[in-house]
Amino acid sequence: MSVEPIRDIAHLGHVELLTPAFEESLWFFTDVLGMEEVERRGESAYLRAFGDYELSTLKLTAADRAGPGHIAWRATSQQALERRVAALEESGLGEGWIEGDFGHGPAYRFSDPDGHPMELYFQTEKYRPPDHMRPALKNQPQKFTARGVGVRRIDHVNLQAVDIDANSAFMRERLGFRLTEEVRLDDGRQGAAWMNVTQKSYDIAYGGRDASGTGGRLHHVAYALDSREYVLRAADIFLEEGVFIEAGPAKHAVQQTFFLYVYEPGGNRIEMISDIKLLLDPDPETITWSQAEREKGQAWRTIMPESFFTYATPLPEEVGQQG
Amino acid sequence: MSVEPIRDIAHLGHVELLTPAFEESLWFFTDVLGMEEVERRGESAYLRAFGDYELSTLKLTAADRAGPGHIAWRATSQQALERRVAALEESGLGEGWIEGDFGHGPAYRFSDPDGHPMELYFQTEKYRPPDHMRPALKNQPQKFTARGVGVRRIDHVNLQAVDIDANSAFMRERLGFRLTEEVRLDDGRQGAAWMNVTQKSYDIAYGGRDASGTGGRLHHVAYALDSREYVLRAADIFLEEGVFIEAGPAKHAVQQTFFLYVYEPGGNRIEMISDIKLLLDPDPETITWSQAEREKGQAWRTIMPESFFTYATPLPEEVGQQG
Amino acid sequence: MSVEPIRDIAHLGHVELLTPAFEESLWFFTDVLGMEEVERRGESAYLRAFGDYELSTLKLTAADRAGPGHIAWRATSQQALERRVAALEESGLGEGWIEGDFGHGPAYRFSDPDGHPMELYFQTEKYRPPDHMRPALKNQPQKFTARGVGVRRIDHVNLQAVDIDANSAFMRERLGFRLTEEVRLDDGRQGAAWMNVTQKSYDIAYGGRDASGTGGRLHHVAYALDSREYVLRAADIFLEEGVFIEAGPAKHAVQQTFFLYVYEPGGNRIEMISDIKLLLDPDPETITWSQAEREKGQAWRTIMPESFFTYATPLPEEVGQQG
Amino acid sequence: MSVEPIRDIAHLGHVELLTPAFEESLWFFTDVLGMEEVERRGESAYLRAFGDYELSTLKLTAADRAGPGHIAWRATSQQALERRVAALEESGLGEGWIEGDFGHGPAYRFSDPDGHPMELYFQTEKYRPPDHMRPALKNQPQKFTARGVGVRRIDHVNLQAVDIDANSAFMRERLGFRLTEEVRLDDGRQGAAWMNVTQKSYDIAYGGRDASGTGGRLHHVAYALDSREYVLRAADIFLEEGVFIEAGPAKHAVQQTFFLYVYEPGGNRIEMISDIKLLLDPDPETITWSQAEREKGQAWRTIMPESFFTYATPLPEEVGQQG
Repeated sequence: MSVEPIRDIAHLGHVELLTPAFEESLWFFTDVLGMEEVERRGESAYLRAFGDYELSTLKLTAADRAGPGHIAWRATSQQALERRVAALEESGLGEGWIEGDFGHGPAYRFSDPDGHPMELYFQTEKYRPPDHMRPALKNQPQKFTARGVGVRRIDHVNLQAVDIDANSAFMRERLGFRLTEEVRLDDGRQGAAWMNVTQKSYDIAYGGRDASGTGGRLHHVAYALDSREYVLRAADIFLEEGVFIEAGPAKHAVQQTFFLYVYEPGGNRIEMISDIKLLLDPDPETITWSQAEREKGQAWRTIMPESFFTYATPLPEEVGQQG
Repeated sequence: MSVEPIRDIAHLGHVELLTPAFEESLWFFTDVLGMEEVERRGESAYLRAFGDYELSTLKLTAADRAGPGHIAWRATSQQALERRVAALEESGLGEGWIEGDFGHGPAYRFSDPDGHPMELYFQTEKYRPPDHMRPALKNQPQKFTARGVGVRRIDHVNLQAVDIDANSAFMRERLGFRLTEEVRLDDGRQGAAWMNVTQKSYDIAYGGRDASGTGGRLHHVAYALDSREYVLRAADIFLEEGVFIEAGPAKHAVQQTFFLYVYEPGGNRIEMISDIKLLLDPDPETITWSQAEREKGQAWRTIMPESFFTYATPLPEEVGQQG
Repeated sequence: MSVEPIRDIAHLGHVELLTPAFEESLWFFTDVLGMEEVERRGESAYLRAFGDYELSTLKLTAADRAGPGHIAWRATSQQALERRVAALEESGLGEGWIEGDFGHGPAYRFSDPDGHPMELYFQTEKYRPPDHMRPALKNQPQKFTARGVGVRRIDHVNLQAVDIDANSAFMRERLGFRLTEEVRLDDGRQGAAWMNVTQKSYDIAYGGRDASGTGGRLHHVAYALDSREYVLRAADIFLEEGVFIEAGPAKHAVQQTFFLYVYEPGGNRIEMISDIKLLLDPDPETITWSQAEREKGQAWRTIMPESFFTYATPLPEEVGQQG
Repeated sequence: MSVEPIRDIAHLGHVELLTPAFEESLWFFTDVLGMEEVERRGESAYLRAFGDYELSTLKLTAADRAGPGHIAWRATSQQALERRVAALEESGLGEGWIEGDFGHGPAYRFSDPDGHPMELYFQTEKYRPPDHMRPALKNQPQKFTARGVGVRRIDHVNLQAVDIDANSAFMRERLGFRLTEEVRLDDGRQGAAWMNVTQKSYDIAYGGRDASGTGGRLHHVAYALDSREYVLRAADIFLEEGVFIEAGPAKHAVQQTFFLYVYEPGGNRIEMISDIKLLLDPDPETITWSQAEREKGQAWRTIMPESFFTYATPLPEEVGQQG
């Protein structure tokens, strides 16, 4: 009889993004994407989408370069959190507890093998809207304000990694992520890996190799919209607002999600996503794409710009400047 | 050889709406519908949708009751205007020229037989956006601001009339409107009439009988959205903002348009519309619906509230109070 | 420290529908909804939607009246199945094992307190498409055939029950369903209950009281579409095909799903649904609607026909005829 | 006082396409696009979209190479037809009358200066559906069959030309087309021209220069869908059916239409289009894009394949083979 799977991570909680253009980034997330700022502390603004149930899913922090601050996952329970912390400590990549932050309780810090800073927490504060943010229907966390793009909720992160096999194995073995789709290169290495903890078909991807060898780099953070039409509408809005559109709207072959990639003014790539599929099968097989299959490109033969395969934050030269 | 049709009226130019709740009505059209205020004169605000090519398509005027101020049609040329004025003068329903108003030149005033005040003009001022309203693409009059519903352009007016046959005949004979669809009651009278001057399948409707006998009453003014999804999104926004939704979103059997009816805070009914069909056939036959066919209701059997068939502005009792 | 929740049921597996008009019902599900028939055994046809990963999600069985044959749930593992069978046996509502059916292995039969026949199984056969049903993208079970409505996957069942409290408690306590939203009547009884086992916000509902006292009656089975526009398109198709549209398309206040209800030719109510929300929070609070809140109706004030609250299959008089 | 415009051409009537793969092309238009075959005569099939009011808008003719057979325009009246024939005869490009064809009466043949064969006619047969094609709503020409893509109506043709200035001038001066948008190259020549006769913002385009000098080549024929979502759905269907997708779905900067280009099996490029804008202004200014503006590409920076700028039917080498 097979061992039952680990189900200790509930979902992606929030992402901290560093930006060298704080005010412009804040404009992008609030005025253009339509998110709400719920707190300001030190160099950081805390933002939320109207459908997020927690207080905040994006922490925007002024810094001298773009890139990921940290990526936080909510555990399914206090016991689940403790089980995962034990597994992380065993891995040698655990870093210890922090007291918490605006909106959530104690968090355990660690890094994946590639050096992306992550946190794990369980205690959270759920959003209680003030009067002017009260929704008409009580089963929605917040009023839909109909400003700009109007993203509904945080969806996933996509990271570059020098060694994708090692990172996807770590997330699976230590945290219980499930590999739903992957690219297997002709040389036997994993070229990309999509994994979930929820019943969305992915919550994290190591989407491509970090050819620069820098480590810890972010490909993108994704916010979800309700349908493809809203992704098209987002493109219309980005065009009007002068936001740099890198690729899309179009349909991925892998995972079949509908995508649109832009750079927020600080330089981080942000994805608008819809049509992420449910994966309700409790014992699904991993879909493996060969290198040849992957090279066929996107579903509708969309031509992607070269930057899509290379650009990630921080830029390698900026990391060098830090040292 | 048949006589060639009159093509002297280009399109619906603008509508003046009276409102006893000016500030709230202004909030509705600007913050909720996402229109822009381009001028304020006396008791009136002049508003435009982002796709309207003329300066303004809605004049909102403070008054002691709701209802139509006037309905203005743009002629296809100066000669066309003069031809129609001659025809109106002959009809006995012409009232004479006015000097013009914000955004357009001299206009000829008249009423339809039911007493709806109308105007005809040719000279107009086309919208030239200030810097902050400049669109990314020069083939669009104005930036799409992505605020609220985001209506694209004025579409049509729908009027009640005591005698629909008489009014639809007047619009056809004097102004060259074409009858595209109609309801013919069992007693032989016209129960409703939809007419166009453009290649949209209607620009004006006498949508139902004014059982009150008041005359000059407005059923609704319609603004167009690009697709059905945007009409659904409008309903979501009206729900959040506490705007009274009377009926829809749903699909009309007649004309097959997708509709959503609300009351703006001043009491006038406003329609959000999409999927108005093109009618490119130069010699189309009128579609006649029998009373029995009409009583089958909307396309998907949508149940309409009683108010939809009776409510129109001004209310009969208010007109009495005026006298 | 709280007890960790039961997670032994993976999802709704399939529903058996009885129909007194087998050929017409088959036409509805294949030609109108666009499902595929994958097997015929005795009086039953086995059908699937293009996105279903199991062989079949609908068993259509010729019978002398409409109604639910049985409702089957897939367990998350063999151990999970056995744990649930033990709990069902303890409840006194267990009935014993059957050998399996087309597409799945041994199943345990039981009834909820209201008498709806249910099954639980784990072993299943995943769909392997024949050549002409092979999809262009290997992460999709089957080719999208673009015939008719084109439903993607089975979504949920909605049942009437004489005693909703008793039935929702049974599903929660014996099977681990979670109550996501409910209506609580002024007299303290539960008026309706929505529960999930997946991260969709519901997988089963006891949507209303069975005032007839019959027991075991089905309100509807729902199939999911990707967006609201496809639900509107379904309504267009039902209109063309003469399928009886009872209510919608419109938006529920409870759960905020976008709905369209029709009767298949055998008399069972079928829902087209989109916009079912993800519920990723591992410790969500139940949303409780008071009787007064519920009486406000649907999100956009859509008027529902009386039949929506009373009609369910089998009809009480038919059940009497069976005796 | 300005001269009133010519309004003698009503709309694009039909296009004849030559195909060296007749059966495969027929499969594409009927099974994939969802059009109906209404007649077969000799080497030709006559097809219609469900919203076309005339009998047929596409004549598909077996031939030894792809390309345009002829392009036919319906006049607004018999007088209008005669006025245009007089103008064509004067131009020296008129060729004389033919008796008519399936679905329309006498037609006058001519070519534009680039050698594209065209026809002009007025008498037409309107579609009267047989019982199985009768729509549920009488204001629609034909039942919507919900098979495949489901195109609504013919929209426009896009032609290459060796000398765009000359061809656009011909269409304007002889036939009354209006230039709505154009590209003006740095050397002063017209790089592309979009013209309308209806209130859609274009009905014909000379979309680019024929660098091969061949003459008479077709860039594409476009069929219209109701919204962007249906263009996306078309891409999904083309992917499943193995139809070659060249570019899109994406948004043009010029005209802002939403496009998807595929090659039908015979080699002709076909466009799925939505969001063509209404142009109701009776005295619009032509929008002129400079070469630099045009080189910015599509609205959302979509990368177009090189073939989009060069490929047209017939291929130059095939025309050589004909000689």
